[in-house]
Order: sequence, then structure tokens, then C-alpha cells
Amino acid sequence: MIRLYDYLPSGNGYKVRLLLTQLQIPFERIELDIIKGETRTPEFLRKFPNGRIPAVELDDGKLLFESNAIISYFADDTPLTPADRFQRAQVFQWLFFEQYSHEPYIASVRYLVIHPEVKDPRRAIVDTLMRPRGYAALGVMEDHLQTREWFVGDRYSIADIALYAYTHVADEGGFELAGYPATRAWIERVKSQPRHILITQS
Amino acid sequence: MIRLYDYLPSGNGYKVRLLLTQLQIPFERIELDIIKGETRTPEFLRKFPNGRIPAVELDDGKLLFESNAIISYFADDTPLTPADRFQRAQVFQWLFFEQYSHEPYIASVRYLVIHPEVKDPRRAIVDTLMRPRGYAALGVMEDHLQTREWFVGDRYSIADIALYAYTHVADEGGFELAGYPATRAWIERVKSQPRHILITQS
Repeated sequence: MIRLYDYLPSGNGYKVRLLLTQLQIPFERIELDIIKGETRTPEFLRKFPNGRIPAVELDDGKLLFESNAIISYFADDTPLTPADRFQRAQVFQWLFFEQYSHEPYIASVRYLVIHPEVKDPRRAIVDTLMRPRGYAALGVMEDHLQTREWFVGDRYSIADIALYAYTHVADEGGFELAGYPATRAWIERVKSQPRHILITQS
Repeated sequence: MIRLYDYLPSGNGYKVRLLLTQLQIPFERIELDIIKGETRTPEFLRKFPNGRIPAVELDDGKLLFESNAIISYFADDTPLTPADRFQRAQVFQWLFFEQYSHEPYIASVRYLVIHPEVKDPRRAIVDTLMRPRGYAALGVMEDHLQTREWFVGDRYSIADIALYAYTHVADEGGFELAGYPATRAWIERVKSQPRHILITQS
């Protein structure tokens, strides 16, 4: 069975949990506490040199890390990835946007807020850089969703899963979504998809 | 003809320039000065809402942004993307690693160093966070290249192009590659590929 190395509060881990559940692919979840350094042990680093979850080990021992690489691998040739070549490129556009312009601000601020005990130099730039860039990412999403139900084409895809993961818990980092009605309506659409699970569900 | 919105010093732009040149796909380059805010004009933002280069406009008017989404689109079904499904996932693993764990440190430190006039809150965390994380990314690459010629499989791919873009100019940000001999040898292998161009070549 697929082994998923995971950390329950992680939105990046949640992307994989949610996708595998929706695709009805069985998996075993191995919980690692990133705060306690459980992804920095020699044993873990031998398998996954970047020392981060989520990471997966397939039945044949193959190893893969990076949440968006993992979800695009499992969603390949399923209804959660468009068949059209350009639409697939648009899915990746939003996956890279999520990891570059969204997660480092929205997810990282949430991490710093819910772990006040963790020392982190980024605390010095939360208000001057991270929070404004988080809102900028939400603004790009809101504009895009003004005229669309889903991020790519006319159906739910892994682009929605990836962006949903940290957007729907952005309030835990102090982000206020009141001014983003199209995004809030999209969050409800994602939640109503078949076999949806919560981020707290293991 | 494909229009590439670009900024010559950008490693992200260079990935696209290098790939299109190596695939012998003709393109028109439109230079925008990111320091002067030329990617934040209403006209540019209407097409590309995240306000960043590189971005491309295809012959039929289709628009795509995010460097790694662009190169994976053009490299699809070419020798620069593996045919094997798991190897393709590994390519994306390294593309996401590049955008999440490499570019925000190695490229951003270079940006701050070569543009000393730009005010940026991140200057406060260059030495405490950005530079150490940049070296951590180089360490992951060096380990991987100890036993391999290329990042995925046994041939040059877009994973190498993406990681090469900012690694080969890391010294411009003050990163010292002397302790990374496998990475330095790989840089030379990338440079010796057919139709290679320099980052300064438009």
C-alpha cells in the first residue's frame, strides 16, 4: 500500500490526503511531527533529502516528494486533471503560483501564528512583506474567480485542491476573507465535492 | 509567433529562452524592466494577473505564466521531458523543489545583491534565513548529483534547465560553490548541451 509521510496540520499534506481519498486510492498515513524535527532524522533524509512532508513511498519502493508533484502524479489520467494539453499547462501554472506566490505567505504566516513558540527570522517580515503578499495572492485568485467556477476549465481539478488547502484555513493565520466573496463561494463549492474530507481528518 | 515577456537578468526568463532555443521554436522577446514596474501596468496585469515575467502569449492568443509551467508545456512530448510516467513526476518534483526551496533563496539573494537600491524587507533575513536555506538547497542538489549525471533518469531534461538557471549564477549573490564539486561538474555538462545560450543572450 502507498505510504504517505504526513503531518496533520499541514495543508501540503492535506492536498495528498484529500486527493487520494477522492480518487479512492488506499494509503497508509505515517504521522511525523515537523516541530519536533521528525523529518530531519538521518533515516528520513536518506529517503527524502529535502526533509519535508508530504512524501510518498509507492508499493515498489519508489519515492516522491513535493506535494504538487505528488498530486499531479496520482491525478494523471483521472477526471481531476484536464485531458487538454493547454489546460494541463494551466493547471501547472496555478500549482506553481500556489507554491511560489501563495503558500510562502498564507501558509507560512499561519504556521508562525499557530506555533508562537517556534523561533523564526521571518517573524520580522510578517507585517511588512508576508501578509501583504498573502493578500496579493488572494487578490489574484478573487479576480480569476469573478467569472469562473473553477481555476481551470469548467470542472474541479488538482489546481482547486492545491489552492484550497491553505486558502480555506487562511483565517488561522489572521487573513480576513470578507472582501473576497468569489473566493468564499469557491471554497464552498470545493467543500461540496464528493468524498471531501476535512484537514483535521486523518 | 510566440511572444515571450521577459527580463534579461531573470533566471526564470532564461529557462524559457534556453528551452525554446534548444527546441528550435521561434519566439519574439518583449523586454520589460521589473525594477521600473513594467510588469505592474494595468495592460500587463489584464493579461497576466500575477504581474510577473516570464509569461507567454501563443499564436492563438492563449496566455500562460509561471516559468516552470511554461517550460513543461513546451517540452511536452520532446526529448527534454521523460516519456516514463514516474520519471515525469520526478521532473515535476525537482521543478517544485526549485521554485519552493531554491529560487526564493538563491535567486532572491542574487536579486537583492545586484539591486542594492531596491528597498526590500527581506534584507533583514538574508544572513539569518535566506543564505542558509540557499546553501541547504545546494546541499540537496550536491547529494543527488554524487551518483548521477542528470537530475532525472540518464538524460538532460527540463529539471536540469530549471535548476541550472539560478545555480550557475549563484556566485552573483555571493554563494560559494567551491564545496559543491558534483554540482560544478553538472553545470559544465549543462553548458555543453547543443544550442546552449548564455543568460545574457537575448
